[in-house]
Amino acid sequence: MELKKLGEFGLIDRIARLASRKHPSIIQGIGDDAAVLRLTEKESLLITTDLLTEGIHFETSSTTPYLLGKKSVAANLSDIAAMGGTPLYYVVSLSIPPRTPYEFIQKLYQGMRAQAQQYGAALVGGDTTASAAPITISIALMGTARTGTVLYRHGARRGDAVYATGFLGDAALGLLMIQKGKALSGRNRLIRRHLDPVPRVEEGKAISRLRLASSMIDISDGLVADLRHILEQSHAGATLRLSRLPLSAPYKKLCKTFSDDFYVPALCGGEDYELLFTVPPRKRHAVETWARTLTIPITHIGEITGNSGKLKILDDRDREVAISKRGFTHF
Amino acid sequence: MELKKLGEFGLIDRIARLASRKHPSIIQGIGDDAAVLRLTEKESLLITTDLLTEGIHFETSSTTPYLLGKKSVAANLSDIAAMGGTPLYYVVSLSIPPRTPYEFIQKLYQGMRAQAQQYGAALVGGDTTASAAPITISIALMGTARTGTVLYRHGARRGDAVYATGFLGDAALGLLMIQKGKALSGRNRLIRRHLDPVPRVEEGKAISRLRLASSMIDISDGLVADLRHILEQSHAGATLRLSRLPLSAPYKKLCKTFSDDFYVPALCGGEDYELLFTVPPRKRHAVETWARTLTIPITHIGEITGNSGKLKILDDRDREVAISKRGFTHF
Repeated sequence: MELKKLGEFGLIDRIARLASRKHPSIIQGIGDDAAVLRLTEKESLLITTDLLTEGIHFETSSTTPYLLGKKSVAANLSDIAAMGGTPLYYVVSLSIPPRTPYEFIQKLYQGMRAQAQQYGAALVGGDTTASAAPITISIALMGTARTGTVLYRHGARRGDAVYATGFLGDAALGLLMIQKGKALSGRNRLIRRHLDPVPRVEEGKAISRLRLASSMIDISDGLVADLRHILEQSHAGATLRLSRLPLSAPYKKLCKTFSDDFYVPALCGGEDYELLFTVPPRKRHAVETWARTLTIPITHIGEITGNSGKLKILDDRDREVAISKRGFTHF
Repeated sequence: MELKKLGEFGLIDRIARLASRKHPSIIQGIGDDAAVLRLTEKESLLITTDLLTEGIHFETSSTTPYLLGKKSVAANLSDIAAMGGTPLYYVVSLSIPPRTPYEFIQKLYQGMRAQAQQYGAALVGGDTTASAAPITISIALMGTARTGTVLYRHGARRGDAVYATGFLGDAALGLLMIQKGKALSGRNRLIRRHLDPVPRVEEGKAISRLRLASSMIDISDGLVADLRHILEQSHAGATLRLSRLPLSAPYKKLCKTFSDDFYVPALCGGEDYELLFTVPPRKRHAVETWARTLTIPITHIGEITGNSGKLKILDDRDREVAISKRGFTHF
């Protein structure tokens, strides 16, 4: 069987089965945003890794090495954020063509440092190889968390409310704009959101520390795909309401110019790096109180149901819609 | 400036300068075999990462996916061994063409698992991308060590003896044999040493625990290059004696058929993954006693001198020789 047919998630499942899980210190191995490893009685080590490949995850023609560095660290920070952890250290493996100017590497690392320092993480090691194209950036990032407040993909229960931080779909719409020939400029918020996403590290820590959520994940694959990860691991279902999706003003203004369907970028677009979390009824009030202290929206977008594995999406007249490759269809 | 001109070690220096080093918990950042990070009062976390790229570090035509998996983990285990640490967890980032058969991945991970399990390390996470060639395998491995017994590249002092584990140059000679058309077979120990190196994890732990050494490194770049790393960081010089180099029986038998110079593979060939360490005079006896308990040789190959940065290589008549690209020349 070729990898192509197996698909990314099929492959992850199989690799997880190949992984040994015998250490008593492994609280969570493969299968969540980061691994969770018991360090001391109350403290755990978190580890995540992300690989960015030229031609798949980025094009050097549409970003800058500085922003590429920032984004490659942001993707890893977002995974630690999704567990409620505090980032600490990272290592970088880089495979890069020998003719690359040194300035490219310099800006790349400056971008990584700028992003990491903002959240207190330090570069502690790496490996660099001169190789044929494509450029490959592999980062492993470690953090810590109090074991008792780590948030997983499992844990969502029927009746919990589904919340998301920030706005959804901006990054996907930004990518569509780049693909249609638009370039980054100071005024273009959507392209900026694609090239320079903000990991929700502080928000993730607060959600964990305040014990607001029953489960959490970062939205890297897209709202629907990432919510499905929560549903699978929580053995639950969910209802999402299109009318509640947090859409930014530029999204509302420009979406129809660049996307055939108004909701698809918000529902299916990846790389927003917002947090998606579920909140038990008795914690709803605390979430709303906390949300008022923030400068980004925290939006109640749906509910967890007992209908295991089933994701129901309702339009503004409460009619169920289905997502297909071409957008939405009504049942 | 192009990367090509800067060279690998020039680039590492510059990246190290770009790295922030503000955490009080960072005992050792970039610049040794692994980073050393204070975990608790007495315990440190070690982190290393290695990237293997098809066409640079391996060819799928001359190895098997299983051995490739074993070797990719061995390279990382060897870095932890060189600090005297105990390996614990690893994550794998893989960039692989979509047409790769699943069986390739399966064997690759089986090889990684076989190697890791032997030393107690568990796979806890990863990332996989379908991408254009070449195949890129990036592993980050974590371990622990007692902070007080960690061994660094710095620490060698004038008068210390230089020791190496195992035999040197076998892996380099094995690579030359592959390049001249020889294939792996059960009887070929040299090619086996290139494709399936043994990381000296237990030996590294013993050297650290018994406090036998003043400095240590693994021989991944070649004896001369790695000894130079110790000399630079210890601000010391060294004398090596060709007559003392530990050469295996197959090396002695086959070296002249595959290499123009008899000593170059042992001095300059990489990927032996043996340990190179320096021993203060008062510990020499303890090293010799410990060595008798092992099945691999532990060989005294030279001395640390006060002549900072200077590496003197002596032939069997105590004449100094110089290494050039074409082999040795007498002064």
